[in-house]
Amino acid sequence: MARWEPNARERLVRAAVDLFTEQGYDATTVTQIADRAGGLTKTTFFRHFPDKREVLFAGQDTHIGLLAGALATAPADATPLEAVGAALDALAGSFGDDRRELAARLKVLIAANAELRERAIFKHASLAAAVADGLRERGVPQPTATLAADVAMLAFDEAFARWAEPGDRRSLVEHARVALEELREAVRELR
Amino acid sequence: MARWEPNARERLVRAAVDLFTEQGYDATTVTQIADRAGGLTKTTFFRHFPDKREVLFAGQDTHIGLLAGALATAPADATPLEAVGAALDALAGSFGDDRRELAARLKVLIAANAELRERAIFKHASLAAAVADGLRERGVPQPTATLAADVAMLAFDEAFARWAEPGDRRSLVEHARVALEELREAVRELR
Repeated sequence: MARWEPNARERLVRAAVDLFTEQGYDATTVTQIADRAGGLTKTTFFRHFPDKREVLFAGQDTHIGLLAGALATAPADATPLEAVGAALDALAGSFGDDRRELAARLKVLIAANAELRERAIFKHASLAAAVADGLRERGVPQPTATLAADVAMLAFDEAFARWAEPGDRRSLVEHARVALEELREAVRELR
Repeated sequence: MARWEPNARERLVRAAVDLFTEQGYDATTVTQIADRAGGLTKTTFFRHFPDKREVLFAGQDTHIGLLAGALATAPADATPLEAVGAALDALAGSFGDDRRELAARLKVLIAANAELRERAIFKHASLAAAVADGLRERGVPQPTATLAADVAMLAFDEAFARWAEPGDRRSLVEHARVALEELREAVRELR
């Protein structure tokens, strides 16, 4: 990042969410986002994001890295769901409470727009694929690896929705642990 | 469908897969597809599909209807995974062996194009959501309903991949039953 544009990436994300909320996703241009982010330019925007949509999903590579890293370093004797628990701790731990309000607004924006919903589902699938890859690298066979990865992402999505509820006070890590335990119970009872 | 354009929909799908395979997805226009389908027009194309991409995912609503119908009519005492088995029988049973070769080519096309992969993932998620809805209407609680729906779609995707392999001779229904049984085993052993 250039020295004269401190936190440009973070400022662009917040400006985008503000403008999408105020005037709608379709009506907002990249130039408006850059301008709202404190007088940045379109060129700066495109140095950070390929297009308007991606500004809302910018964390994807970081999130995949957190999941993969935790799976690679979990104890060798951890079961698939224990390894998944470590991966969710790492991912959920990266969401500070200062991002909760932004997450809540993002959830509303995505729910209202078909293009964003489709992109969110693609992100969900990309994270699930990363978890399945990490489990297979631990020697977990198929289809257990994809099944455990799906369980992980069902738990994370549920935890995220609860964390983004207005007035909620638990951390995302706590929500993720509760949601994973609920899924583990459902797995035990599934017939 | 107008009387003077018999099987226009099916002809358009086959023409699209042919042209995408021969000259690439991006290079193919709607006018070319309509023309290849035996001298149809762009107007006819748009009477059947909203755009070039959707011609490859045209069965989605039918597939959702088959899953929902089977879940609604499965015996009241069927377990979630038994109901899921009935739903997969209904869906898989709609794929005759005359469509196997088309499915194999479709798989290659989708794997090669990011836009099509994203759309395929959205279809997968839409079918999973329909199964989860159908299970909840049967009184299956959360998160068991979404978990069982994910198991269903993992089984279907695996079955479809095996069925589309060159030289395979089993029906899609047989593949779906085998794949579901493998998933059921993985669920039992998941720790």
